[in-house]
Amino acid sequence: MVAAWRELAAQGWVTTRPGGRTVVAPTLPVPIPRPSAVQRAPFAVEAHPRQRDGLASRWPLGAGEPDLRLLPAAALARAMRRALHRGRPSVLGYRDGRGLPEYLDGVRDWLGATRGVATDRSRLVSTHGAQHALDLVTRALVRPGDRVAVEALGYAPAWRVFDLAGARRVVLPVDGEGVRIDALERALAEGPIRAVYVTPHHQYPTTVTLSPARRVALANLARAHHFAIVEDDYDHEFHYDGPPRLPLAANDPDGHVVYIGTFSKVLAPGLRLGFVHAAPELADALVELRQASDRQGDGVTERAVAELLHDGDLQRHVRKVRRIYAGRRDHLAHRLQEQLPDVLSFTVPSGGIGLWATVAEEVDDEAWVAAARQVGIGLRAGREFSAEGSRVRGLRLVFSRLDEDELGAAVEALARVVPRDA
Amino acid sequence: MVAAWRELAAQGWVTTRPGGRTVVAPTLPVPIPRPSAVQRAPFAVEAHPRQRDGLASRWPLGAGEPDLRLLPAAALARAMRRALHRGRPSVLGYRDGRGLPEYLDGVRDWLGATRGVATDRSRLVSTHGAQHALDLVTRALVRPGDRVAVEALGYAPAWRVFDLAGARRVVLPVDGEGVRIDALERALAEGPIRAVYVTPHHQYPTTVTLSPARRVALANLARAHHFAIVEDDYDHEFHYDGPPRLPLAANDPDGHVVYIGTFSKVLAPGLRLGFVHAAPELADALVELRQASDRQGDGVTERAVAELLHDGDLQRHVRKVRRIYAGRRDHLAHRLQEQLPDVLSFTVPSGGIGLWATVAEEVDDEAWVAAARQVGIGLRAGREFSAEGSRVRGLRLVFSRLDEDELGAAVEALARVVPRDA
Repeated sequence: MVAAWRELAAQGWVTTRPGGRTVVAPTLPVPIPRPSAVQRAPFAVEAHPRQRDGLASRWPLGAGEPDLRLLPAAALARAMRRALHRGRPSVLGYRDGRGLPEYLDGVRDWLGATRGVATDRSRLVSTHGAQHALDLVTRALVRPGDRVAVEALGYAPAWRVFDLAGARRVVLPVDGEGVRIDALERALAEGPIRAVYVTPHHQYPTTVTLSPARRVALANLARAHHFAIVEDDYDHEFHYDGPPRLPLAANDPDGHVVYIGTFSKVLAPGLRLGFVHAAPELADALVELRQASDRQGDGVTERAVAELLHDGDLQRHVRKVRRIYAGRRDHLAHRLQEQLPDVLSFTVPSGGIGLWATVAEEVDDEAWVAAARQVGIGLRAGREFSAEGSRVRGLRLVFSRLDEDELGAAVEALARVVPRDA
Repeated sequence: MVAAWRELAAQGWVTTRPGGRTVVAPTLPVPIPRPSAVQRAPFAVEAHPRQRDGLASRWPLGAGEPDLRLLPAAALARAMRRALHRGRPSVLGYRDGRGLPEYLDGVRDWLGATRGVATDRSRLVSTHGAQHALDLVTRALVRPGDRVAVEALGYAPAWRVFDLAGARRVVLPVDGEGVRIDALERALAEGPIRAVYVTPHHQYPTTVTLSPARRVALANLARAHHFAIVEDDYDHEFHYDGPPRLPLAANDPDGHVVYIGTFSKVLAPGLRLGFVHAAPELADALVELRQASDRQGDGVTERAVAELLHDGDLQRHVRKVRRIYAGRRDHLAHRLQEQLPDVLSFTVPSGGIGLWATVAEEVDDEAWVAAARQVGIGLRAGREFSAEGSRVRGLRLVFSRLDEDELGAAVEALARVVPRDA
């Protein structure tokens, strides 16, 4: 009897009042829910483009990630603790969608000091990363049917954003000087273009830097045809040979450039922090759009990164990681030349976190990528970088995530599974 | 001479090589950028709906925020430190957009235990909060011209999401039993409706709980007309009198309900964490859409909140805060009855973090709100809750953010600025 009452009490159906009287609980427990068998929605769901993520692998040579083992985790954790301290409404409450003032000012100073980009709060917007930045910019600028120019070899997640907005893609070839501006000029002769999405610093995935002549030509076309240049400078920090080339945004007197940056490569993709620098009118529209679709950024992360920027911890981290990645780049290039001289040809990239190599004609590159995955090497076939989904005899090999021993082991494993003609 | 060299070295123009030889630095410093005078974008920027945020005020009675002074900041900071520890790629790297498995499982167990909602990872999606959840759901379901039904007194930020998607709003009156389902039935007779956005637990802003008869009628209409019921359960935890009413999602055998939850009221809006529970087919579409537009959630926050849920810290925090807010509700009601008996009439709400009061005919409510702002009381006029922008003789008074002394002082200040007819 007592056991039965205890069981009812444990389940929350009865409770004990002062004086020892047992009564039915004033707040009845929620009945245990039954699992549901629903699969399909009983209303129409629009289909959306699929995005495959990189497979987990022993040697991730495909994912464009930093080495998270180098993350200044203790400094970040301390800064987050301080951001949470005392529950400041300015950090933790509802606020303006543009971003914490200290974060925007930190980004402003950083852009000025490292990239020659003069900006201020009126031209900056905080975002959850480059992908979110691109989605906001696209929602602000692109309407269904608008034409958006993209690089023929490029960043597929950006194309998905344009597809989502109903844009028509105009594909521009890429060569040893970067994206072909003459092709853009021909496309403009056929009709207006709303935006041109480019990666001028280290073209993704070929790592080529856009030549000075083409930069001038692109700016002139933007001026003549009133399109936005969406500049994705996702890995600006990682330039190893000579000074980094300044972004297009550093020389943009009329505000044609919409500049997108991220802390995904500098710190970690899982932090979800990036920014847009744009003409104040567009920045204001992005803030309103952000507030309507996402309200505001993560105050703890913005505040913590602002502190790392302010104290110079982030800058020190960048210098340290840049030195390490430069060593890894050299090591990867050396091991590839040693182990796969007749299979891969490449130029050592002057920056970025990956190397782009051309695969010899006699090797089936897609069979090779598949075989590599079987032995634990994460790789992406060239086709995944093609805006037209065509076969590309190239491989992007990311060197940031593995140390030199790991890179050596990965290249050895890769060399063992080259499919050769019988 | 030496001083000049030192200055050049400090500015980064020269550097010292091993052996003491001074040379021009291999990496030249970036020239100091000139501020730009650009204001207008040199391309067309689409206008977007404006969203005004609450003003900073001494007594914030208008903003639907928790009391951030009660935030379990130390527990959160510890959990974030552990989430950052060792730079785990599963937390900090690129990953699936659905959310960290431990976060989704934490939400699943919490929904089961507190709300009778049976769910699993296949039906859950992590979001940056309720606003982001609503934007994803709307992008997945609503196309320009689609009709979306909303409550006549309601949550303006939700309407902005529907407006952004090009939806046509159908406005449903609200009375003492919640939203009027007979009005929805009449609207359905005029044409299809894509989604119905409701706040059944504590109707926003009137705090009325949707009656059982209307719940049944709404579910029957959804079944007959194949629309989605978007249930925004933004403050489920804060129910004070008797057991919380189970959400519509707890009794939804066919998957009509799209259930949106958030940690903004339980923890802090600045954390940006929420979730959607939906039919697996829709949840999959939301994941794809999230990946395409925003990539993924913040791993540190998801992991930290998962830990608080797993360890029971969050549940303990909710119990503590619920007790405190119940006291504040009673105190606010008591002070209003004492100080403004002839001006405000209201029913003490059984849940939520705000009280809805009707303003007497002879008092100009909008002049009162304006006068209150002048003396540091943050308040929103009834019109801000009207889907049709019409004048509403109501005030929403949020009691969560102020302690009992502060609430008393705020009510006194409010009573002093009542505009009376001369």
